[in-house]
Amino acid sequence: MDWTTDISAATARIAGHVLRTPVLTSSALTGTPVAFKLEHLQHTGSFKARGAFNTLLSSPVPAAGVAAASGGNHGAAVAYAARALGHAATIFVPELAGPAKIALIERTGATLHVMPGEYANALNAAQEFAAQTGALQIHAYDAAATVAGQGSCFAEWDDQGLDADTVLIAVGGGGLISGALAWWQGRRRVIAIESEGTPTLHAALGAGAPTDVAVSGIAANALGARRIGDICFGLASARGTPTLLVSDAAISDAQRRLWQAHRLLVEPAGATALAALTSGAYQPAAGEKVAVLLCGGNIAPDPLG
Amino acid sequence: MDWTTDISAATARIAGHVLRTPVLTSSALTGTPVAFKLEHLQHTGSFKARGAFNTLLSSPVPAAGVAAASGGNHGAAVAYAARALGHAATIFVPELAGPAKIALIERTGATLHVMPGEYANALNAAQEFAAQTGALQIHAYDAAATVAGQGSCFAEWDDQGLDADTVLIAVGGGGLISGALAWWQGRRRVIAIESEGTPTLHAALGAGAPTDVAVSGIAANALGARRIGDICFGLASARGTPTLLVSDAAISDAQRRLWQAHRLLVEPAGATALAALTSGAYQPAAGEKVAVLLCGGNIAPDPLG
Repeated sequence: MDWTTDISAATARIAGHVLRTPVLTSSALTGTPVAFKLEHLQHTGSFKARGAFNTLLSSPVPAAGVAAASGGNHGAAVAYAARALGHAATIFVPELAGPAKIALIERTGATLHVMPGEYANALNAAQEFAAQTGALQIHAYDAAATVAGQGSCFAEWDDQGLDADTVLIAVGGGGLISGALAWWQGRRRVIAIESEGTPTLHAALGAGAPTDVAVSGIAANALGARRIGDICFGLASARGTPTLLVSDAAISDAQRRLWQAHRLLVEPAGATALAALTSGAYQPAAGEKVAVLLCGGNIAPDPLG
Repeated sequence: MDWTTDISAATARIAGHVLRTPVLTSSALTGTPVAFKLEHLQHTGSFKARGAFNTLLSSPVPAAGVAAASGGNHGAAVAYAARALGHAATIFVPELAGPAKIALIERTGATLHVMPGEYANALNAAQEFAAQTGALQIHAYDAAATVAGQGSCFAEWDDQGLDADTVLIAVGGGGLISGALAWWQGRRRVIAIESEGTPTLHAALGAGAPTDVAVSGIAANALGARRIGDICFGLASARGTPTLLVSDAAISDAQRRLWQAHRLLVEPAGATALAALTSGAYQPAAGEKVAVLLCGGNIAPDPLG
């Protein structure tokens, strides 16, 4: 697998379909400069649009269209990309996705199924639907085309002049951090940040293999995969990627600080990487240049609702 | 008055104190590319930090510190800049500034006076305080150092590669648009957007001189100056600057569209320029490249409150 080639191809393929999201450097939160990428401003409010467009633009799409299971953000991205490209979309979300994400998917015109229970149940339903209808299933994180699409975020950040030794990235199923690890290949230090209630990578690295975890807490509707993807586990274990856990209180505090300092409103998952810095869970060395990716902005309730 | 020299000097003077705010180009709102500058992510949530730092860094500051009257955003900016530079600040705000802006000023540690009635009453109180104590008064819009500071926003936007024929800018007292007119000197077409309830420039250009207007509506707590500043009137009348009025409903709709499409949450004043596009009040010609400045993000109620 030549990730560099695949991510470069994905970046070119999805240009014009996804936003080149802004970057911002500020010392206001920690007293030293932190480079932010505002990927939560992406279409449908998360990086997931990148993997969705890359998959749809690199695969034949059957008449039955596309199917996806999602905590909300991936489903919204698949629905948005499908509509933009003229395909039908059928999306399965767990009820814990919440009303804001469900409304976001409804606005795309996709067929939406809200499933009881957690993400894994929605995944089973999506797989069954795809098997019955022939719909193209787009995995939220554990597929090469998804990972290559998410990797475009980091190719783009480099192109925007990112100056960082270390990059903090939130992890759920691991698609986003896989894109970072696959793109940078050790050129920057990547640190995985998980909420205490969604420790999929932390548990897998401890156990030596992807392992099921119970998911809970305020970030579960975006980071609450039951287990880390195989692609992510492979990349992270090969690189010895460090993982840090942050509490829900630290995440809420980071959300509030980001809003108060910069009027950037992110969902809990979107503040999880930042929480490692603002809580002190990650303490940069003197002179270490740190970057934080803000990955999702689909908060609930709707602030203008 | 050599505005080009003054704005270039201001840009250099305040570098490191203010953020280089991000830019974003998106077609999601109107179907054609619009260049946005996210100046509402600036320290204290508006462009006002630019004028405040430029004034404080180019004037001797007496022991009594600084005083300002403000609908909220200017007061917060002056208080923030004063604290950053080690000066005392006394801020006078009209009660219509609202709890979010008042809390923002309180967090800076400034001495805060909430005055009954509209902005003009706060301005009188600030002037009286400055006369009694010798405090340096920083005008919110009608002072050369304020305008030169705001002008740095447009010098910065040019430096970020702005590609636009036409720039839409919201107008209250006129400090921000004065910075644009003074910097661009006709090199780009600048259009003044005002809410129907705060038509200070529109009324002045119609009357041939700055004239008092009654202020009302959802943008009044940021755009609700009683009359346009003399600097702005001079620049806008010399340039024949077009003005457009937008309704409160159009402003609310623009706020909602911006949040739904991009997770950018701005206050009514911050969506006023965009509202001219999304409501159709301004209709670009075929091929005309349009830019919109998002000037303020201090919405109420606090979305995380």
